[in-house]
Amino acid sequence: MSDAPETSAKGKPGTITVSVDAMGGDQGPQAVVDGCAQSVSKNPDLMILLHGDSAVLDPLVARHTALRGRVTVHHSPDTVKMDDKPAQVMRHGRDTSMWNALAAQRSGQAQATVSCGNTGALMAVSMLQLRKLSGVHRPAIACLWPSRGKTGFNTMLDVGADVRADEESLLQYAMMGAAYFRNAFNMPRPRVGLLNVGTEDHKGRAEIKEAAILIAQAAEIGQFEFVGFVEGGDIPSERVDVIVTDGFTGNVALKTGEGTARLISDLLRRELTATPWAMIAGLLALRPMRRAKKRTDPSRVNGGVFLGLNGTVVKSHGSADATGVSSAIKLAFTLARSGFQERMSDRLSAVMDTVAERQMSASDSTGTEGQE
Amino acid sequence: MSDAPETSAKGKPGTITVSVDAMGGDQGPQAVVDGCAQSVSKNPDLMILLHGDSAVLDPLVARHTALRGRVTVHHSPDTVKMDDKPAQVMRHGRDTSMWNALAAQRSGQAQATVSCGNTGALMAVSMLQLRKLSGVHRPAIACLWPSRGKTGFNTMLDVGADVRADEESLLQYAMMGAAYFRNAFNMPRPRVGLLNVGTEDHKGRAEIKEAAILIAQAAEIGQFEFVGFVEGGDIPSERVDVIVTDGFTGNVALKTGEGTARLISDLLRRELTATPWAMIAGLLALRPMRRAKKRTDPSRVNGGVFLGLNGTVVKSHGSADATGVSSAIKLAFTLARSGFQERMSDRLSAVMDTVAERQMSASDSTGTEGQE
Repeated sequence: MSDAPETSAKGKPGTITVSVDAMGGDQGPQAVVDGCAQSVSKNPDLMILLHGDSAVLDPLVARHTALRGRVTVHHSPDTVKMDDKPAQVMRHGRDTSMWNALAAQRSGQAQATVSCGNTGALMAVSMLQLRKLSGVHRPAIACLWPSRGKTGFNTMLDVGADVRADEESLLQYAMMGAAYFRNAFNMPRPRVGLLNVGTEDHKGRAEIKEAAILIAQAAEIGQFEFVGFVEGGDIPSERVDVIVTDGFTGNVALKTGEGTARLISDLLRRELTATPWAMIAGLLALRPMRRAKKRTDPSRVNGGVFLGLNGTVVKSHGSADATGVSSAIKLAFTLARSGFQERMSDRLSAVMDTVAERQMSASDSTGTEGQE
Repeated sequence: MSDAPETSAKGKPGTITVSVDAMGGDQGPQAVVDGCAQSVSKNPDLMILLHGDSAVLDPLVARHTALRGRVTVHHSPDTVKMDDKPAQVMRHGRDTSMWNALAAQRSGQAQATVSCGNTGALMAVSMLQLRKLSGVHRPAIACLWPSRGKTGFNTMLDVGADVRADEESLLQYAMMGAAYFRNAFNMPRPRVGLLNVGTEDHKGRAEIKEAAILIAQAAEIGQFEFVGFVEGGDIPSERVDVIVTDGFTGNVALKTGEGTARLISDLLRRELTATPWAMIAGLLALRPMRRAKKRTDPSRVNGGVFLGLNGTVVKSHGSADATGVSSAIKLAFTLARSGFQERMSDRLSAVMDTVAERQMSASDSTGTEGQE
């Protein structure tokens, strides 16, 4: 066990402590510990609380001199499995590393949490422990998507927290996504687009047309630019930074993008090993192709961020390697240090007040219409 | 103008006439005429009625000796533009090549129609002219998707005819998709999957869980195998042939897949031209990479089929080249010759009767519950 005092996070000004669930990823705790080592050696302001089986974690931590004095291992006897149902974990998950990682954040020992585990369970326990941010109807999961734009990434939300979203939820996703993108990528005025089946005004479902009106009206308070409807082909586009959609569509789109990238990569590999000539070409083209792959495979872009909670929770990809875990920790650190949640909450309240006022004045004018 | 008699289609037994809208594609009428020439030279049983501006089409047709006696040009003074609204075309589109292509099918001069034009207008005019097949709630658009499976393609529907689908519509899509896949790819028992955000029973929206029950019950009459829920990543999978979803989700998934393929292709090109060394590798790898690209770029898989109408209509991709147009014509020919629509209509009616009976007996048993 590390000898770092638990108060260290608060002790040093500018230091951020990230609570890391070391169990539950496909690559096992070693990838997580290696990822922590990468992170702390790059970032002197980072402290880590590591949750899991200390009999497994202590020896892994001991291997990295970089982790000495920077990581505290907290023993948790139990692990949330990938097929555990969220409700089950909420009732019986108190001894799991996931639960304890979030409990440490709740009690103020850490300012953000990272886990590679079961997404549904992580969202359920996060909501239970951290509670929703004031004014938020529904938390959302925002993913990063490789893009042609300056930052190299766009963000899309919701990608699976909730299978339905009405116009007010879509408005909140726009506000939260813009706040997240601004703070993660230092972009003062992100561009927000609403996912639809066409860019013309008359297309799409009723709640999406309604949401477009609400989002356009909220652009000033939310400090974003609303670019209107975008289509599936625009998700990696450079004309938008934040793509707003419901969790069903977002989840299907995310997995379709991942699946398409995997299919292309597999077919390229097959073609480039089909003949000796192709194999030579393939070997020569290996490095540039790897660079392209690294930029485009959505599963390598790590860090689904839970938005709308009292605190930052980053869901690292289940199959993330050490570099993936390290980038998820970096994202959690950046967001926790920015303190964007409070500002986002204030703006959300202001926007929802405006929506409520408009609805009231609309129903007033409907009410008086008959009398005039 | 060609001298082929208009009765030729019906004159020769085994001959199929396809009505082709030559206008409205991004590549212009030349790509369409070249595609027709490719088709007729490969297929002795194919006749073509070509609709569009005869001053443009006649010289293009005259260039191909293969088209002599096989193509009849029908003059249409007007063209549906890509941004014309469907309602507008339904009211004022009587002089367009799209309208006349479908009118020829309606009057029995042709057995199928192919158009590269505006999808919304094509669906609207198709419904107006051909009418829905008996028993069909809503027509659907089925696209082909490059896959790892034996046929090299999966089909997904609906990809944009309707932005919503209830459980009965999803059931009908399953029946129609299975019938289409069976006849297009000669697969006696296609495997049908229902698109969802997870493969576990408890996941997803209410209408999707309900649809899963209806589809499972219809598998025997529909002569397909139901594999249950599939996710976005399974769309190109070899464990499913037909992916069922609503038109909003399907359209977003289709365009996301296309966009991801384009992004990867662009980034590969950029990386393989970045340094002289990479360029050499890129030149050597060009042919295997082109082969992989040809298999994976969804926009090259040509032919969105409208299902649930009295007749076969194929929407060719707007940017299709001659080969793309030719493959759309081949698809239309194959489907028209199979005569699958009538068999599909019979099975649909049988399934919908079963659903209605179950609903009646369910409401009966609810009604008597209180009295027992």
